[in-house]
Amino acid sequence: MDHKQAAALLRGQDDILILTHKRPDGDTLGCAAGLCQALRAIGKTAWLLPSKGATAAFRPYLEGLEAPEDFSPRYVVSVDIASLGLLPDNARPYAGRIDLSIDHHPSNEGFARENYVEADKAACGEIVYKVVTELGPLTPEAALPLYVAVSTDTGCFVYSNTTANTHRVAAALLEAGIPYQRVNKRHFRTKSLKRLTIEAELLEGMHLYEEGTVAVAAVTLEMVERLQAAEEDLEDIAAFLGQIEGVRHAVTIRQLKNGTCKLSVRTAADLNASAVCALLGGGGHTAAAGCTVEGAPARAEETIVAAIRQVKRGQV
Amino acid sequence: MDHKQAAALLRGQDDILILTHKRPDGDTLGCAAGLCQALRAIGKTAWLLPSKGATAAFRPYLEGLEAPEDFSPRYVVSVDIASLGLLPDNARPYAGRIDLSIDHHPSNEGFARENYVEADKAACGEIVYKVVTELGPLTPEAALPLYVAVSTDTGCFVYSNTTANTHRVAAALLEAGIPYQRVNKRHFRTKSLKRLTIEAELLEGMHLYEEGTVAVAAVTLEMVERLQAAEEDLEDIAAFLGQIEGVRHAVTIRQLKNGTCKLSVRTAADLNASAVCALLGGGGHTAAAGCTVEGAPARAEETIVAAIRQVKRGQV
Repeated sequence: MDHKQAAALLRGQDDILILTHKRPDGDTLGCAAGLCQALRAIGKTAWLLPSKGATAAFRPYLEGLEAPEDFSPRYVVSVDIASLGLLPDNARPYAGRIDLSIDHHPSNEGFARENYVEADKAACGEIVYKVVTELGPLTPEAALPLYVAVSTDTGCFVYSNTTANTHRVAAALLEAGIPYQRVNKRHFRTKSLKRLTIEAELLEGMHLYEEGTVAVAAVTLEMVERLQAAEEDLEDIAAFLGQIEGVRHAVTIRQLKNGTCKLSVRTAADLNASAVCALLGGGGHTAAAGCTVEGAPARAEETIVAAIRQVKRGQV
Repeated sequence: MDHKQAAALLRGQDDILILTHKRPDGDTLGCAAGLCQALRAIGKTAWLLPSKGATAAFRPYLEGLEAPEDFSPRYVVSVDIASLGLLPDNARPYAGRIDLSIDHHPSNEGFARENYVEADKAACGEIVYKVVTELGPLTPEAALPLYVAVSTDTGCFVYSNTTANTHRVAAALLEAGIPYQRVNKRHFRTKSLKRLTIEAELLEGMHLYEEGTVAVAAVTLEMVERLQAAEEDLEDIAAFLGQIEGVRHAVTIRQLKNGTCKLSVRTAADLNASAVCALLGGGGHTAAAGCTVEGAPARAEETIVAAIRQVKRGQV
């Protein structure tokens, strides 16, 4: 399937519902909003399934697009969703009847009746952009959320998933005349005071190992409660330590209410994060993995440092 | 003059020296290195005037391109230089004999024999890219420093100067097959521990005024000396406070050895930074200006807050 076929399918349908994944990010929400706007522009009735997980930063792009309770769709599309397990609770009723899945995850499970997947794209937004411009002329209303999709999934064109195509799509979206500067300011140049305070405290409490190449720090319950920090203030906090010059591998410990710790491990090419976490019953990708350790942050720190050393010494 | 004419001029010359501005940034150095590589690729003898101010992060792009002492140029080009006052000391001998100036500053003074200025471009790299691709096929050797130019001058496509053209140029540069991920990691995803510590201390020592919309903090001599911070660790530190959610206007005070303080004022649209600084004998742009205040940081803080209030209340 290609974008022309996907557009042809959509053109032949109406009363379209668009699904986003749980813990929604800018890519899934931006794709859904952009596609919805483009479908409406060609006269379709199209809605997004309301997303309870959408954070305040993304709410403006969803305005007027979330389906009323009595909307009864005849065609269901999912965007940026790799597997049915990623559906939010309110999407469960549609799990067995998704007509079209548009996605960029290599792990896409092909759960829909038709699946349009391009795994070489940094953002699903790059794929939806192709479908949208096949449906009709690009409008600012569709271009703005698609810019949110493409920019957030690449950290504003800085992550290593960014490609020439990402920039080409961005150029076309900017040309539609959208207030992208506001998107950049809001999503990439603004941090809450709580977030910055957490970062400062992580830095202060950080320990370095293995000649300064391994950094470990904890977001404790005490910190979160004292600062009244919300999940939004902690978004992608695991990336913070990894930016320190000289640090190749970073572990961010998150103390949970149940007395366990959730660990996020980010590594450079010379250490397999997934192998480290597998030693502690966790898993993930080569460069980013996670696991759970019982007990206080100090114990979690000891445990993960031992696991890192074991993998580094080739004892696994 | 357009890029075709600039390329034609260069094609007719040889023994070319390229000048960068003082306190060189990624744009001037990347433009110079990219142009030099492109000229060499078409058989010219071309060199950069050695840049003493280039920081370690930019050194790799200059390797093998800095002129030997006995190089005697027959044609002199300046890149990203708006006025002769911005020439570094070792470029002074060439001040009166610059043959071609390629620049993107609206304030370019037209000091060269021929001046090619496009003031609508975010980075001078976008202009040099046009000249380079007119000279011959784009090589990775020229594309890499040009990517450094374009990405650093836009904060990796996040600043409001970024345009569709910036993204189009980036797409073409990435397609040349360059290790842009390494550039992004080095320039946009790496901070020194000293830098992060300074940021944490700025946050801790920060004061908020005018219902949290004005933030003021100082980089003191004591901090700089205790941390043994270098100029590199303080680069663009004035941007730090401005990212705090709710803060519209940010003042970063830098205590100098001579007992005075240098103030950087960054403001949103509802306050003219230049008007604020003019009250204290300084100046600059609407959104970014500077001034010097005698005495300790606490006194500088009082003085600038009073000036901000005066301008905000429309008493100026």
